[in-house]
Amino acid sequence: MDKKSYILQLLKYFVMAVIVGIIVGAIDALFGRVLIAISDFRTIHYQYLLPFLPIAGLVITAMYYAFSKASLKGMKLVFEAGQQKTDAIPLLLIPLVMIGTWLTHLFGGSAGREGVAVQIGATLSHAIGRKFKFPENGRLMLVIGMAAGFGGLFQTPLSATFFAIEVIVIGKMDYEALLPALASAYTAAFTSHSLGLEKFSVVMKDTVNLSGTKTIAAVICLGIIFGLTGRLFSFSLSKLKAFMGEKIMNQFLRIGFMAIPLAVLLFAVHGSRYSGLGTNLISAGFTGQTIYGYDWILKLLFTIFTLAIGFQGGEVTPLFSIGTSLGVILGGLFGLPPMLCAALGYAAVFGSATNTLIAPIMIGLEVFGGANMVLFVIVCAIAYGVNGDLSIYAQEKL
Amino acid sequence: MDKKSYILQLLKYFVMAVIVGIIVGAIDALFGRVLIAISDFRTIHYQYLLPFLPIAGLVITAMYYAFSKASLKGMKLVFEAGQQKTDAIPLLLIPLVMIGTWLTHLFGGSAGREGVAVQIGATLSHAIGRKFKFPENGRLMLVIGMAAGFGGLFQTPLSATFFAIEVIVIGKMDYEALLPALASAYTAAFTSHSLGLEKFSVVMKDTVNLSGTKTIAAVICLGIIFGLTGRLFSFSLSKLKAFMGEKIMNQFLRIGFMAIPLAVLLFAVHGSRYSGLGTNLISAGFTGQTIYGYDWILKLLFTIFTLAIGFQGGEVTPLFSIGTSLGVILGGLFGLPPMLCAALGYAAVFGSATNTLIAPIMIGLEVFGGANMVLFVIVCAIAYGVNGDLSIYAQEKL
Repeated sequence: MDKKSYILQLLKYFVMAVIVGIIVGAIDALFGRVLIAISDFRTIHYQYLLPFLPIAGLVITAMYYAFSKASLKGMKLVFEAGQQKTDAIPLLLIPLVMIGTWLTHLFGGSAGREGVAVQIGATLSHAIGRKFKFPENGRLMLVIGMAAGFGGLFQTPLSATFFAIEVIVIGKMDYEALLPALASAYTAAFTSHSLGLEKFSVVMKDTVNLSGTKTIAAVICLGIIFGLTGRLFSFSLSKLKAFMGEKIMNQFLRIGFMAIPLAVLLFAVHGSRYSGLGTNLISAGFTGQTIYGYDWILKLLFTIFTLAIGFQGGEVTPLFSIGTSLGVILGGLFGLPPMLCAALGYAAVFGSATNTLIAPIMIGLEVFGGANMVLFVIVCAIAYGVNGDLSIYAQEKL
Repeated sequence: MDKKSYILQLLKYFVMAVIVGIIVGAIDALFGRVLIAISDFRTIHYQYLLPFLPIAGLVITAMYYAFSKASLKGMKLVFEAGQQKTDAIPLLLIPLVMIGTWLTHLFGGSAGREGVAVQIGATLSHAIGRKFKFPENGRLMLVIGMAAGFGGLFQTPLSATFFAIEVIVIGKMDYEALLPALASAYTAAFTSHSLGLEKFSVVMKDTVNLSGTKTIAAVICLGIIFGLTGRLFSFSLSKLKAFMGEKIMNQFLRIGFMAIPLAVLLFAVHGSRYSGLGTNLISAGFTGQTIYGYDWILKLLFTIFTLAIGFQGGEVTPLFSIGTSLGVILGGLFGLPPMLCAALGYAAVFGSATNTLIAPIMIGLEVFGGANMVLFVIVCAIAYGVNGDLSIYAQEKL
């Protein structure tokens, strides 16, 4: 390719990235704001909503069966598109996964939102690329869309960009998409913010001086424990999914029946404390409210249970809340500032479970500021090092 | 491999990493402290030393010819070892490159030190790995050694770790070596610091608020200009090396003759301002002393001239000084704080010329603190995006 057509193509990708960013950012704002309203409503009225969780599950499954059964594969479809095993991701996936996630959260399932935004972004961007017959449509447009989805929902564009790049191939980074993804993530974040979606961030005043063997040893331990926790999450999620799929082949029976004990347990244990995104645990952790020693493991178990039986939603916010609640406890144990440890857990458990390294470091930067960056790098690196290359995204290997 | 032998092997790598870190850190301290003493001496007595630059060139070349001609390939040998094209890097490379670099700097050549430390670390670590018959000797021990070399000399262990990982393959990151490299880099930094080598860092008080299209446009321009500058450096260095090698085949004639105009010009233009590492420009930039608009390009030209005709030394510190002096000027032009722009240039020009992304971001963190991290990420990403995948290390592609 000569220089002129190369620059022309680059410009085309940038225009595409901005367009994708605006559309995905707007969808993210809608998805995110409704989700927050739903979550607030459920927090108050959970006792009337949780009993209907099994029925919500049946409705979600029926919806997918009626309109686009293929879309049930969710994130897997995105990775298949990346590997060019599939031509197109059905556009119906977008409303289905949005409504499915809203229903899951309204009736008290424990799940996230980020994977949903990433799927929306990828689906839309891939479709736009196909329409305009972009040469490198497959991977590049996917990365642009994933970055927009993540960046629009959390308004953490740097993290979103690296997440999209890192997640597409295990253990490798492909930087080709770097600048277009950065453009789409920033555009999406700006758009969703303009449309009234708020960014979550914490002013972190605590710091730890990395001197003295005791502190260094404690920080290394934090990295190892957060890494193993992320590994436990991705390992048990994939095992439980496989187990459920094997035991109850019929998807209606699976979600309908298994949602009964799920709803009962969610109700019985601290009345819906473990329903929804887990932002209650996150804000408890960063405002000094009560965090129980078992919060992290219960949130972990409820989330993998919810997702394994077929509810819709992401994993990232629950991972943040698992990391936060574990961090508070470990801070107490190791004699380090609990909120700082919570912040480190917030980033590192997410990185470990998604098998990403730079994305969680950037989360540390964009959510908690730059003051403790060295700690974030070290803890996330160690967590990444002990995660055994496992990821919640089964199709990540190319 | 079963779990027990896997953990055993991991432990072996960590022990190796610590041993490599201690030895390389100690050599770095010796190399670095002597180099600083030599630089200070030359700064005062340059008028008596510069005339002998051609003779120094002949002595350096004669030394290599007498003891280990193969070692002249320097960094190329390291990459060949990484690709298993060569079995062993001669241990004689270590004293040769140290003495060669000392002589280059004593008599006023314009060159760096970092590439030297990286070569020392890689050579030593590779030899140790071979001695203990480590299974993955090739790549992993090289990365451990390179991280130790860089980390020991600059005491920036995070940057050193990512540099070693990123530099070994173009455009891809291989994270397998992450934790052992982190261990060796920290050990080396600790060792060299204990042995009296000082770390360079700047307390950066300036910040820029990333709002307003004018500021955002200026920051994007900074990234593009720094990226193109790094690209100019690596492009012209490789072209000039090839040109000189073609025109004057005999290495003695090349260095002996071409060092005469080099010495004359170094003397004539601001009396040795562009000799040595360029730390004079760096400290001028960060203490508000005079930086000329042409400092960056003259430093660039003198450095590629020095290295292209066969003198020894690295490229990284000159790249830092090129970025700093360019940043001060651009800050003035764009109406941004000059010292902050200098800091961004310090990191981004280095990243562009070495085709690394995370390493320069970590340089921003470890040298200038976390307050401006978002700016460092954006500017380094853009610089990386426009560098055209060129690198000063010709053998980087695997």
